[in-house]
Amino acid sequence: MIRRATQLLAAFTAERPALTLSQLARRTGLPLTTTHRLVGELVECGLLERHPEGTLHVGLRLWEIASLAPRGLGLRELALPFMEDLFAVTSANVQLAVRDGHETVFVERLAGRSAVPVYTRVGGRFPLHPTGVGRVLLAFAPPDVQEAVLTGPLPRYTPHTVTDREALRRVLADVRSHGFAVNDRQVSEDTLSVAAPVHGADGTVIAAVSLVVQAGSALPAALAPAVQATARGISRALRDSAVRDV
Amino acid sequence: MIRRATQLLAAFTAERPALTLSQLARRTGLPLTTTHRLVGELVECGLLERHPEGTLHVGLRLWEIASLAPRGLGLRELALPFMEDLFAVTSANVQLAVRDGHETVFVERLAGRSAVPVYTRVGGRFPLHPTGVGRVLLAFAPPDVQEAVLTGPLPRYTPHTVTDREALRRVLADVRSHGFAVNDRQVSEDTLSVAAPVHGADGTVIAAVSLVVQAGSALPAALAPAVQATARGISRALRDSAVRDV
Repeated sequence: MIRRATQLLAAFTAERPALTLSQLARRTGLPLTTTHRLVGELVECGLLERHPEGTLHVGLRLWEIASLAPRGLGLRELALPFMEDLFAVTSANVQLAVRDGHETVFVERLAGRSAVPVYTRVGGRFPLHPTGVGRVLLAFAPPDVQEAVLTGPLPRYTPHTVTDREALRRVLADVRSHGFAVNDRQVSEDTLSVAAPVHGADGTVIAAVSLVVQAGSALPAALAPAVQATARGISRALRDSAVRDV
Repeated sequence: MIRRATQLLAAFTAERPALTLSQLARRTGLPLTTTHRLVGELVECGLLERHPEGTLHVGLRLWEIASLAPRGLGLRELALPFMEDLFAVTSANVQLAVRDGHETVFVERLAGRSAVPVYTRVGGRFPLHPTGVGRVLLAFAPPDVQEAVLTGPLPRYTPHTVTDREALRRVLADVRSHGFAVNDRQVSEDTLSVAAPVHGADGTVIAAVSLVVQAGSALPAALAPAVQATARGISRALRDSAVRDV
């Protein structure tokens, strides 16, 4: 039952945030009567909302509960002041991401209206191998995760995207030795990003923060110190908050 | 079953974001065996996460789904660039909130490390009558909601908090005629906030945006134009995005 309810909730996507009852049934493959009954319960619990025109949407109540996810808004709340400082001095996009399985999940993004357009969405997923944050998360992931990603499909986004397994291994080794990752036109021809690791209270890498600028507008080595300082600030805040929670 | 699962999810709070199985059973009043089984399913679906030390937390998967709530992150994504502009020029706290029933739910907050401390949390709830955003949301709420709030309990936070029903009616009438709300030391002795309404594509007030500064540091009338301009920018973006979605 919980699995079916999760299926219904997960049927909503950024492209289709509003669905009718019959679209939900079609997308999940559940019978219409089952869908009807489960949706009724989900609406009653506030996990879904029914709008006047009859469409269903993810509910505010679900979002409230989700705001307590330590790897979602919890992390974001701690990281935000440091990200804002970086945003204030650069006016560039500032991103925060975590790894879930073999993908990046974006937890926060600050983007001024004048910053270079970035095609990430808070709550959205992306492969690990091409982005700055993804390369940091992959470089510090357990060896089995690295192997699975490197031997799996490695989509190409631009002519510059590194998809050669051995070349990627060298990229990851560089990330570990330099303490930051660079994505130069790996995802789009316009963008350059520099990312650094965020350490949890136990010292493991639990997130990555990045600065995304127009490709060609700056040297990665010039951006790295600011991103690394931001990542260290967030890591320190995580350590302090873990101490407070004891 | 869904009601029970929701009960389990809702047992997590900002004060207790990590719970053990037996704490969950105690908090929800569900038998330990039922709790054990439901938690197992919730973990399998990614709605809860089990940490190495055995505690349970709200899961990243739940947060991902929740990022699609139109009144949560959806609204926040559209509003953020405008809020950042306001934050950049004021360095004060900038908040975005919606009404759920008889309460305010905070959807976004930008707060520099130098801004006056504010005790709101993204995803957190607060009464409508004392805050700037709450007064905007209440002033434009349906008459039955206004009546229910005005005849219900009206907590007092400082000696300045207006809790007299007739005085509050006048406050709300002022909000409607001036197009902005003021909270001068209504919640804490240190803070002054000015809030303005955000209109949805259909013209109804769906959210409120506010600027929170140190009490005594500015005149409300001097802050209002910037907040109102920000609210109008967000309203316009909502209108444009509704047009795009058709």
